[in-house]
Amino acid sequence: METVTMLPLTRVAVCGGTHGNELSGVYLVRELQKNDGGKAEEQGGAAETVSVLKVLSNPRAVQQCRRYMEKDLNRCFTNALLSTPAGKETLYEIVRAQELNALLGPKGSPEAVDLVCDLHNTTSNMGLCFISYSQCNWIGPHIFRHLQREISSMPMRYIHLGGPSSEAYSLESVGKCGFGMEVGPQPHGVVRADIFSAMWDGVRLMLDWIRRFNAGTTFEGGEVEVYTMVKKMDFPRDPETESITATIHPELQDRDFRLLCPGDPLFLSFTGETQRYEGEEPLYPLFVNEAAYYEKGIALWLARMTKMAFPPIRVKAGAE
Amino acid sequence: METVTMLPLTRVAVCGGTHGNELSGVYLVRELQKNDGGKAEEQGGAAETVSVLKVLSNPRAVQQCRRYMEKDLNRCFTNALLSTPAGKETLYEIVRAQELNALLGPKGSPEAVDLVCDLHNTTSNMGLCFISYSQCNWIGPHIFRHLQREISSMPMRYIHLGGPSSEAYSLESVGKCGFGMEVGPQPHGVVRADIFSAMWDGVRLMLDWIRRFNAGTTFEGGEVEVYTMVKKMDFPRDPETESITATIHPELQDRDFRLLCPGDPLFLSFTGETQRYEGEEPLYPLFVNEAAYYEKGIALWLARMTKMAFPPIRVKAGAE
Repeated sequence: METVTMLPLTRVAVCGGTHGNELSGVYLVRELQKNDGGKAEEQGGAAETVSVLKVLSNPRAVQQCRRYMEKDLNRCFTNALLSTPAGKETLYEIVRAQELNALLGPKGSPEAVDLVCDLHNTTSNMGLCFISYSQCNWIGPHIFRHLQREISSMPMRYIHLGGPSSEAYSLESVGKCGFGMEVGPQPHGVVRADIFSAMWDGVRLMLDWIRRFNAGTTFEGGEVEVYTMVKKMDFPRDPETESITATIHPELQDRDFRLLCPGDPLFLSFTGETQRYEGEEPLYPLFVNEAAYYEKGIALWLARMTKMAFPPIRVKAGAE
Repeated sequence: METVTMLPLTRVAVCGGTHGNELSGVYLVRELQKNDGGKAEEQGGAAETVSVLKVLSNPRAVQQCRRYMEKDLNRCFTNALLSTPAGKETLYEIVRAQELNALLGPKGSPEAVDLVCDLHNTTSNMGLCFISYSQCNWIGPHIFRHLQREISSMPMRYIHLGGPSSEAYSLESVGKCGFGMEVGPQPHGVVRADIFSAMWDGVRLMLDWIRRFNAGTTFEGGEVEVYTMVKKMDFPRDPETESITATIHPELQDRDFRLLCPGDPLFLSFTGETQRYEGEEPLYPLFVNEAAYYEKGIALWLARMTKMAFPPIRVKAGAE
C-alpha cells in the first residue's frame, strides 16, 4: 500500500471522567494536570511538537462518583444535541457537551483538535481496547499497533463502531480523529493499580507515537484485527416486572473476546437453569456484564472479527 | 463446655438491598419473595418451624441502583437515630430505618425477630464473611461453622465488630441476634453468577441449620477464627485538594486476609512510588479497596485474628 501523508498532530486532548465513576481516567488526568502546574494545556519547550489538553469531562459526576448526573454525557455529542439551544431547563450533561465542543471542537470544523483520546473503564474483563467510530485517517490503527507491541501486561483489541460522524454520540467524535481507550476489569468507583498502570502506559505510548510522527518518522503499514458490533443482547427479564431473571453464565463471565458458539452457555437463571446461545453465527462477546449497561438493557455485545490492512503513514513533507 | 439451651428461632428476616447497588442480595430476596407468591412472610406447612420475612431494605436506592439516596441506611440503626422524631425534613433513610425497626424490631424488645441476616456485596476479594456486632447467643458461630463445612467454592471468615448494641448502626442489630453476610468480589451494580450462587448457598444452609436446631438437634461446640477490627486506614491524599494520590499496591490488591507485615507494600502512588506498611504489628487486611469506602476515607481495614471457643447448643427442652 502506498504511504499516506498527513498534517502533524499538533493539538491532542486526553479526557478522563467522561463517566464520573470510572476512576482510572479521573486520576490519570489529574496527574497530567499536576505536571502542568495546573494549566489545562501543556506547552512544551522548543522541541515539543504537540500540545496536550487535559480535560476532566464531567466534573460534577466525578465529584459525586456517579456515571452522570442527568444524562449519560457520552451520548450527548450528536450534531442534534450539540446544536440544541441551551436554556435553564437544559440537562447538565447537554450543557457540558456544548462546553466541551467549544473547547475541543467545534465538531467537524477545521478548528477541532487533531485527536481526542477519551479514557474509560469497564467492569468487564476486556483488557485494553480502542473504540473508534471511523478509521478517520489511519492514525487509530497505527497508534494501536504501537501500544500492542509495547504493552504486555494485558490483551489489546480494536473495536470499530462505524456510522456517520454527525450521529456519533461520544466525546471522541468531536476531534478530527479520536478513540475511546477502555480498560478493565475495574469496578466503578475503584482505582486498581494494575488497570491504572496499563492506561498510563497507553497514554504515554500514544504521545510518544505522536511525537515521533510529527518529527517525520515513517511508520510501516500492517494489519489489525477489528471487532465490529453485530448486536447487543439483554438479560432475560420477567415480562411483568421487567426485573432480570438471570445473569451471565459462569462459563461466559470474564471471557470477553472468546468466541461464543451456537449452544454455548449464555445466561444462568437465579433458579439455576442454563440458557444457551441460539444464534447461528459464532460471534465474539464483549462488554460482558458491564455494570453501566444494566439500565440500558444490555447484558453483552456480540461482534464479528475481521482483519483490516492499513497503509504506511508519515507526516506531510515540509510539515514536520 | 456445657451445652447452652435456647428458645427456638421462629421468626427470621433475610434482608437484601440495604445498599441498593449490591445486587446479589437484591435478586436473592426477589427470588425468595417469588416463592412466597408475593407474601412478605413465608408460612410453611405444619412441619415448618420457622417463618421467614424477606425484606428489600432500601427500595428507592435499589430502583436507582445506588448505595443510598441521602444517607447510608446501614448507619441509621443506632438507638439515637431510631428514636429521632420524623418530620418532613427527615432524611429518607432515617424514615426507612424507623419503618424497618417497626417491622423487624423494635430493637432490643421481646417483639424483635429472632435473627436478622442482612445480605451485602463488596468489591474486595473477601469471599463469604459473617460480620457480627455481638456473639449474642452463640447462634452466629454455629451457623457460620455449618456453612464453612458445606461451602467449598470460596473461603469464609468471621468478623466481629463489638461495641454496645445501642450504638450498633447496622440493620442486623435490630434482631435479637443477627449478622451481615458479605460476599465478594463483585462490582457494585453487577450480579455475578459465582457470587450470587455462594450467597444463595449461604442463605439456604442457614435456614437448614435453623430448622434442625428448632427440631431439637444438639450441635457440638467448637472453635472459630475471629477477625476483630483494629483500625481503618485511609489512602494517601493531597493535603490541599484531599484527592487521593495513591491506590492499593498490586501486591496487596485482592489479597484480603493475607497477613500484612511491617515493611510490606501497602500503596502505590500514581507516580509509581511504593509506600510500605509501617505498623509494628502484623495484621490482617480486609475490605481492601472497597468502592463504597472511598467517600468514608477508608482504603482498608486492619484486623487481629484470635480463636474463639463456642459451646454446644440445643433448643430448650419442651420448646422444640
